[in-house]
Amino acid sequence: MHVNSVPQRTIWLSADDPEVVEVIDQRRLPHEFVVARINDVETAARAISEMWVRGAPLIGATAAWGMYLAARSIPARCDMKFWFEEAYGILIRSRPTAVNLRWALDRMLEVLHLAHDPYEAAVVAKRMAAHITEEDVQINSAIGDHGLSIIRDIYTKKKDVVHVMTHCNAGWLATVDWGTATSPIYKAHSEGIPVHVWVDETRPRNQGASLTAWELKEEGVPCTLITDNAGGHIMQQGKVDLLLTGTDRTDRAGNVCNKIGTYLKALAAFDNQVPFYVALPSPTIDWTMKNAFEEIVIEERDPNEVLSIEGKAGNNITRVQLAPEGVNAANPAFDITPARLVTGLITERGVCAADSESMLSLFPEQAE
Amino acid sequence: MHVNSVPQRTIWLSADDPEVVEVIDQRRLPHEFVVARINDVETAARAISEMWVRGAPLIGATAAWGMYLAARSIPARCDMKFWFEEAYGILIRSRPTAVNLRWALDRMLEVLHLAHDPYEAAVVAKRMAAHITEEDVQINSAIGDHGLSIIRDIYTKKKDVVHVMTHCNAGWLATVDWGTATSPIYKAHSEGIPVHVWVDETRPRNQGASLTAWELKEEGVPCTLITDNAGGHIMQQGKVDLLLTGTDRTDRAGNVCNKIGTYLKALAAFDNQVPFYVALPSPTIDWTMKNAFEEIVIEERDPNEVLSIEGKAGNNITRVQLAPEGVNAANPAFDITPARLVTGLITERGVCAADSESMLSLFPEQAE
Repeated sequence: MHVNSVPQRTIWLSADDPEVVEVIDQRRLPHEFVVARINDVETAARAISEMWVRGAPLIGATAAWGMYLAARSIPARCDMKFWFEEAYGILIRSRPTAVNLRWALDRMLEVLHLAHDPYEAAVVAKRMAAHITEEDVQINSAIGDHGLSIIRDIYTKKKDVVHVMTHCNAGWLATVDWGTATSPIYKAHSEGIPVHVWVDETRPRNQGASLTAWELKEEGVPCTLITDNAGGHIMQQGKVDLLLTGTDRTDRAGNVCNKIGTYLKALAAFDNQVPFYVALPSPTIDWTMKNAFEEIVIEERDPNEVLSIEGKAGNNITRVQLAPEGVNAANPAFDITPARLVTGLITERGVCAADSESMLSLFPEQAE
Repeated sequence: MHVNSVPQRTIWLSADDPEVVEVIDQRRLPHEFVVARINDVETAARAISEMWVRGAPLIGATAAWGMYLAARSIPARCDMKFWFEEAYGILIRSRPTAVNLRWALDRMLEVLHLAHDPYEAAVVAKRMAAHITEEDVQINSAIGDHGLSIIRDIYTKKKDVVHVMTHCNAGWLATVDWGTATSPIYKAHSEGIPVHVWVDETRPRNQGASLTAWELKEEGVPCTLITDNAGGHIMQQGKVDLLLTGTDRTDRAGNVCNKIGTYLKALAAFDNQVPFYVALPSPTIDWTMKNAFEEIVIEERDPNEVLSIEGKAGNNITRVQLAPEGVNAANPAFDITPARLVTGLITERGVCAADSESMLSLFPEQAE
């Protein structure tokens, strides 16, 4: 996607130095666009733990490139196997619960253990890290193509601007490129279909306001920021043609676990006959999980995210207190939308209904 | 209600000076409790227009006391009728769309025009302003008594803490005392029923976080602040026994216009079999309105309320920018919840279902 009209990804090998990986430092967005340089495995781990990068696919790619940097810097007389396992340990501890992180690291370690010498290790590490990165781009691009046909159908019938509502950031900043929920939007926009996006601010961390709105603006896609409270009213007014979000985890029955507040928008979409699609790369489907409502324990995050908020005051980023001293807050990070409220899932293999049978028709290898 | 354990109202005649009216300066809440002194009609108008006071009933009471101050300061050789009409004009322009403001001013003007001399004018003005103030307290106290029986019934069945969720501030700070939606909660609390309140922060103006949470804390009612996104999830978890809000205007069919986001909570309550009651003084029912969806034009407020937010940083109140430069925002202030999602209305005359027939059974004088 574009930033300041320049094509950009979230992570890439530096053009001027093959021992440096560059990433967008997302902590400074949306107020500043800063590129950070990563030149060793410790810095790669910090980029993940301190959230310079976020989003499961991007965390995986960053870890993969971290292993590549480790492979470029094997000290003389050091046991290679030991060295790679050390690097693996440093990276896996950077975000212990991220599934993509482990998955990317396992793939890297597997090929690295087959290398005979440091030169070969560096070559295969680069090849595998690039492959993991490119694979993410391909998956999201395919999601975009399948989602595009949904938007195209709406446009063909409506012959007027297609209004999409989204929640949180399932954008290219969470992946290497394209994003998941944003991918169909970007594809429609570049095909010339007039799209407009309603962006929920997504309290408490405001990823909608700070990341999704920024992405869309930089790509030139018309968008309007709204409070999380406003979405229902806007649907009642007939101003939404499609609700489109990502997901952190979806069970095999099609129940969708996603950023807190998704359930409320899904209820409003259902009440107003607005189709609700969820865009997801297939690894997000947890085929081992039958009922997310019984099996997922929702993460309870720091209450300070509710009690205060960060923004720009003059040239500084400042945190301001919103609530009175001494008030308690609860901060559940996700909610689960029952499959009955979901019109369909957009995967890299195509679109299916949010039920076991339809999902298995796209992924027959997952049948029990 | 109480502030720092001291009984308090939002407006009162100064104990040390009969020519001064005192109000809580609500702009400083929740970070500071400040009492402002009003000693002339111009200051009363400023208190309304600059939102030292807010909430329809409190605006009405403030305007009434503004007329009293006018009546205390009639200049020599000035035509009394002209003087009162000037004061009326100054006050009515302070918040042109507030219905309670006009209603309170009309009642004041009516008695003032009957006064024969400045002395008599001051006496009747004081009496009528006190009456308008006291009437508000009585109405909200009655709402509290009727709502209390709903909470008591839940407690009798459950024999455990009653969890109430509320949205925005329909608290005593919007009235003279008690509040509307909070009145049953305060009555239950003081009767010894264990209640706990989930307080929605209510973006964009955060009246839940800054006013409702503050009120409840000062009154000693246990409460937990949540983002507007979290309410649905908390209901899914069975942690809410009652959704209870106020309303700005309700039509004769029982459709409820209230702060943006109420509709989303009503949908979630319905989906989870949580009863949803709306507390309202009967003047809030617009009997001339058959269908709020067709007749109410929702106020669109300043987009800056969405793009930025105010909070406390160190000892200062600071506004911070949340969204990237150049992003548009929409800011509808209210939404309408269809009567089918409302369990009942709590009025000063009792509780009724949200439909014409039930409403008219309590207010037969409004039959067409």
